[in-house]
Amino acid sequence: MSTQPKTIHDLQTPALLVERSIFDANLATMSAARPGRQLRPHVKAHKCTALAQQQAATGHETFTCATIREVEGMAAAGLGADLLLANEVLDMSRLAAVVDAGARVTIAVDSDAVVDAAARAGINEVVIDVNVGLPRCGCAPEDAGRLADLARNHGIDVRGVMGYEGHAMIIDDLAERRRVVEECMTKLVAAHDAVGGDIVSAGGTGTYAINTWANEIQAGSYALMDTAYGGLADLPFGQALTVLGTVISTTGPAGGIPGWAVVDVGLKSLGMDHGNPTVPGGVVWFCSDEHITWQPDESVQVTVGDRVRVLPAHVDPTVALHERMYLVEGDDVVDVWPVDLRGW
Amino acid sequence: MSTQPKTIHDLQTPALLVERSIFDANLATMSAARPGRQLRPHVKAHKCTALAQQQAATGHETFTCATIREVEGMAAAGLGADLLLANEVLDMSRLAAVVDAGARVTIAVDSDAVVDAAARAGINEVVIDVNVGLPRCGCAPEDAGRLADLARNHGIDVRGVMGYEGHAMIIDDLAERRRVVEECMTKLVAAHDAVGGDIVSAGGTGTYAINTWANEIQAGSYALMDTAYGGLADLPFGQALTVLGTVISTTGPAGGIPGWAVVDVGLKSLGMDHGNPTVPGGVVWFCSDEHITWQPDESVQVTVGDRVRVLPAHVDPTVALHERMYLVEGDDVVDVWPVDLRGW
Repeated sequence: MSTQPKTIHDLQTPALLVERSIFDANLATMSAARPGRQLRPHVKAHKCTALAQQQAATGHETFTCATIREVEGMAAAGLGADLLLANEVLDMSRLAAVVDAGARVTIAVDSDAVVDAAARAGINEVVIDVNVGLPRCGCAPEDAGRLADLARNHGIDVRGVMGYEGHAMIIDDLAERRRVVEECMTKLVAAHDAVGGDIVSAGGTGTYAINTWANEIQAGSYALMDTAYGGLADLPFGQALTVLGTVISTTGPAGGIPGWAVVDVGLKSLGMDHGNPTVPGGVVWFCSDEHITWQPDESVQVTVGDRVRVLPAHVDPTVALHERMYLVEGDDVVDVWPVDLRGW
Repeated sequence: MSTQPKTIHDLQTPALLVERSIFDANLATMSAARPGRQLRPHVKAHKCTALAQQQAATGHETFTCATIREVEGMAAAGLGADLLLANEVLDMSRLAAVVDAGARVTIAVDSDAVVDAAARAGINEVVIDVNVGLPRCGCAPEDAGRLADLARNHGIDVRGVMGYEGHAMIIDDLAERRRVVEECMTKLVAAHDAVGGDIVSAGGTGTYAINTWANEIQAGSYALMDTAYGGLADLPFGQALTVLGTVISTTGPAGGIPGWAVVDVGLKSLGMDHGNPTVPGGVVWFCSDEHITWQPDESVQVTVGDRVRVLPAHVDPTVALHERMYLVEGDDVVDVWPVDLRGW
């Protein structure tokens, strides 16, 4: 747009909104619970260096990344003091360039092939990625020591271990969640005993308060939140992120079918893997490429042109669809942050 | 990347691939069935002006768009001879600028509010968008004539009608699909009788061959295809689009749990609203932000570093997550097309 938007009514929709007061509270709450290096914020949840700068301002100088692009962008933004790529990659030439330019990059390794690739690329800091129960990446816990030895034989510094208890994250019952975390972290601690190093990295927004085994938590969603995490009653984080939409069409009730409204937020502006978004004041029927068809509650009057704030079910893939996010205080737009870590 | 990739093994993954021979056959098949203006290709399915140039080269000079950005980009690429924005918008200032620059832009209107917005913006060509049974946008068929009169009273040229029978698109049974299309198009034809104009625009990839009432079909998915449309046995289009991934981790069978592999294609590179993607030669267990956890068939040997072509379930939101698509002939990369119509 040609001029800086002053209120949400100046915005082209769909548009990502971040409610400043809720966002600030989320960061303050997490930093109080996990100060400094006890939190390694995961940037995959927001893909935004301006947002990461805010996390750095609350005391966190170590970050977690999921992609090479995220590592590159964080380093270029001056946030490369200690970046962990918590994911396996095989072509590390771009990472080596980031290290050569002065950033500190540690990568996850879980196989001989990835250790060999690191050695070839001249990447000399790794953590051993351990399978703690989620069937995804990670070596068997009992293989962690051997992999660490292999890396050290290549002259690589092994900084410790990581393991992601992703299957525990959104277990409703807190006691059961805690039980699964303990089961996972018992494996990670055993692997750490065999590997050594300073880092025991794990956890996420759903387990940041109950994972007492890890010495750094890789949480990301807590900053913006989504309705999936919002369903966990014990989490103290508020829904800061919404997708602003405009009501572009309404149809009145007829022939026994209730009326509905259409909002210009759809599959192209929402991560859908956790299901439909939530529209306060009504029920979502279905989403199309650029539309939500939505039945407002009987008490809610909806008119073409109304602005609606849609709550996404999953923050990470939602953010990845947008070019920027607008910081708002109520209806006032107070800042614009590029979502500058998208792609790979 | 710094140099032009020569084969898919040079590509950073995930990467969108378009198999040239299948793509060419899809375009040829559709153009034979719906030549020239009988097809108004929908660019929302690919968001790529280079791909649209190929559609233009097979005889189609009219296009359908879903967003203002798509209209702007198509016009800027020299493809603005006759663009239909098949969606309601309220702030048309950017569209008016496109018209002022020489493109022809027709917009869909389904309410007094949108007609008034068009009049205020100086947009002077519309079609009446009619609800033919899918609960989304579109006026009641019996209100179409009144809306056309309202537009004409504003000095706006009403070019005809459109109506999207989206709920018919992926009905498996062809006879039942045809029955639903007829039911919908009976409403659209009645509305057209009241509205007048040359255009009766409807349809999509699932109904292009059986919708004999519309005089132009708004199909888009046929060019690249996805597994949802691929499930319709009567469609003659092949799966041209895949997402190239790399196997980054493997875990052998243990304790009664079969082994699995992890491919670096996930929620950030796949539209998920139609469910999980398909990985030939195995079964997808689940997707994470940057991962598919996948169980290869017993006969399939998988090694870290292998390249895998993942078939998305829904083409439109998948394409919207990528910056470019690579045209390939087998493993050879023959062209790179920017996905330049993303955003809004």
